[in-house]
Amino acid sequence: MAGRYYDEWQIGDRMSHDIRRTVTETDNLLFSTMTHNPQPLHLDVEAAKASEFGQILVNGTFTFALMVGLSVGDTTLGTLVANLGYDKLVHPSPVFIGDTMRAETEVVALKDSKSRPNAGIVTFEHRLINQRDQIVCQCLRSALLLRRPIP
Amino acid sequence: MAGRYYDEWQIGDRMSHDIRRTVTETDNLLFSTMTHNPQPLHLDVEAAKASEFGQILVNGTFTFALMVGLSVGDTTLGTLVANLGYDKLVHPSPVFIGDTMRAETEVVALKDSKSRPNAGIVTFEHRLINQRDQIVCQCLRSALLLRRPIP
Repeated sequence: MAGRYYDEWQIGDRMSHDIRRTVTETDNLLFSTMTHNPQPLHLDVEAAKASEFGQILVNGTFTFALMVGLSVGDTTLGTLVANLGYDKLVHPSPVFIGDTMRAETEVVALKDSKSRPNAGIVTFEHRLINQRDQIVCQCLRSALLLRRPIP
Repeated sequence: MAGRYYDEWQIGDRMSHDIRRTVTETDNLLFSTMTHNPQPLHLDVEAAKASEFGQILVNGTFTFALMVGLSVGDTTLGTLVANLGYDKLVHPSPVFIGDTMRAETEVVALKDSKSRPNAGIVTFEHRLINQRDQIVCQCLRSALLLRRPIP
């Protein structure tokens, strides 16, 4: 396992995740069509040219899923009981084909689980950042994590 | 366009979206690998068998993206200025390979835009429901939508 147990987190912990990723046309097209998303900004070059972005805008649900994916290995891999929910998911800047993403995580809340004495809730703030150092996606994720097993 | 303008929504409006979709192994595998999500519950049959689910759990970020995709055609297609954000995203029941999804939407808030006189903010509650009538995903989406053009 590469994630950390509940007891191993403190509020204010921050990490930059090693895996970076350039977003490609394939990502945006496959993702939008797999999810039946018909938004022309994602699929229609001519409509995108006429928009305020002037080019294809990458599907924000892909951006979100990539941000979560890039963070899982260092945060909850092997220690997750369940993802309880996500809040305040925003896309402050657009993502374009060819942009390169990196992810950061900060712990913003900790709470013992009432129902599971062997677990606790960690609230992470995840941020996805492009090569121009703009935040392109941000959210809170509350994860129920195992406590460290008693040896 | 198939979406509705800001002025055409009222709080309490509800709709069931026509497009239904069976979730396949391909969805879960492509989606998880495209987003570098290493969670064994999504990718490792043996780990999934040993979990409380007893089988592969479909990646929740796919479930969310599918719910949004299924709703766009009837809600914001051709009338969207921007998605402002998502809140209270939860997955109350698991999704397994072979489950069939349908989506419902309800309007829970309306607010005139201060910065754009030609637009307003609609808050949708989206729900994704399986063939056993269980809600498997739910969120709030706040969308900035154009007002109906003055003829």
